[in-house]
Amino acid sequence: MEKLSIIKIGGNIIEDATSLAAFLTLFSNLEGKKILVHGGGKRATHVASKLGIKSKLVAGRRITDAETLEVITMVYGGLVNKNIVAKLQALNTNAIGLTGADSNSIQSEKRAVKEVDFGFVGDIKKVASNSINRLIKADFTPVFCAITHDGKGQLLNTNADTIASQVAIGMSQHYETSIYYCFELNGVLKDINDKKSVVKKINANTYQELLADGIIADGMLPKLENCFDALSNGVSKVIMGNTSILTKENDNFTTITL
Amino acid sequence: MEKLSIIKIGGNIIEDATSLAAFLTLFSNLEGKKILVHGGGKRATHVASKLGIKSKLVAGRRITDAETLEVITMVYGGLVNKNIVAKLQALNTNAIGLTGADSNSIQSEKRAVKEVDFGFVGDIKKVASNSINRLIKADFTPVFCAITHDGKGQLLNTNADTIASQVAIGMSQHYETSIYYCFELNGVLKDINDKKSVVKKINANTYQELLADGIIADGMLPKLENCFDALSNGVSKVIMGNTSILTKENDNFTTITL
Repeated sequence: MEKLSIIKIGGNIIEDATSLAAFLTLFSNLEGKKILVHGGGKRATHVASKLGIKSKLVAGRRITDAETLEVITMVYGGLVNKNIVAKLQALNTNAIGLTGADSNSIQSEKRAVKEVDFGFVGDIKKVASNSINRLIKADFTPVFCAITHDGKGQLLNTNADTIASQVAIGMSQHYETSIYYCFELNGVLKDINDKKSVVKKINANTYQELLADGIIADGMLPKLENCFDALSNGVSKVIMGNTSILTKENDNFTTITL
Repeated sequence: MEKLSIIKIGGNIIEDATSLAAFLTLFSNLEGKKILVHGGGKRATHVASKLGIKSKLVAGRRITDAETLEVITMVYGGLVNKNIVAKLQALNTNAIGLTGADSNSIQSEKRAVKEVDFGFVGDIKKVASNSINRLIKADFTPVFCAITHDGKGQLLNTNADTIASQVAIGMSQHYETSIYYCFELNGVLKDINDKKSVVKKINANTYQELLADGIIADGMLPKLENCFDALSNGVSKVIMGNTSILTKENDNFTTITL
């Protein structure tokens, strides 16, 4: 089975022009078929604030109301995505920027209102892996932003980590698929204050120990849940670390297995 | 040769939700292979103004400075394009939203500074008709916004009428290509105050007469120049009128021939 790499980059890489340029060069040099997934970073918050739209938080969690969704669509789907695509073209990577609505690639449903109404947030229901594969077979490199659609005309804000894992699960029908979660750390750290304390391997058993020890907590928790979800559903390999995990020189990162 | 229809819609259609919905239904129902090209309308001006960015005009012509380009990328490439794509998906049209950077489809060069420095405005240099055709062959319906790229990482603001005509010229290597310019009028009018005074047929000879009579002037002039450029370079048919030119009921529109 042919290999496919799905690389997800976080906000910190996107916000810094130098980091982004360095990453895009690494991504372009990566051999084989590949997909990029990017979050939006703080840019959307900046634009929203300039437009006089206040961040709405309920129980510490952000709410995507109609005007916030407009900003997200402008910033993630327009400004960030299209500039990444233009820069990848300059590096001879034939990128094509997508939301989940484009080529109907990722359908989601608006999150049901329980204690909190998150607004226009979508939980992924279906990845059209055949559609995405038609783009890849046509020699394009898909670049996804963190937006999906409900199939009824509504765009929805969707977590980029989850987009990466769900697209990877879908694509594992066609390819031997790996996910590379790139962020500002070298991987999962035993001690958050010691950058070198990378947990090199995590499997389902050691994951439980890390949870019990409080080493995996906060934002890392949903990330790891996504990893195990992907591995349990056909994805071959998940790696977390800084952007140099895309090179062969780096051997200091976290590999997650079942 | 198989037929391909390229439909361009202007700002007035995009700005009004009812008009847009009605148009998108007509577009979805249109048989055969097709491409949509849309301008941005006044939405970009509104967002720019809310962000405190003032429109810069030199000799009555708009200048696209760096921050205006950002707004255009957000509004045309994000907000307008992605909402159109989501709405087309709801109508079972497998749309894919594109700038000229996506799939490297339209390369342009930054307009040279002569009397006026227009800023980040691109004049089209090359349409990658093979790339666009790979998308069409993969059963996607391209939806272009009015942004191109220079191949060196820079996005550029580009006139949507010209995108329609240049894409049509490129695609006429692969298809018998028609352009439908949809706008608020029924076509070219003999008397701008009489909506019914449609000039039904214009050819190169009558065009000169209409020019001499001042019937074609202002904004209509570059539109017509685009039409004749397209027809001189392989495009089969150019039609101008309101959105009902996409139906068979309407016979009140302007057809342009050589």
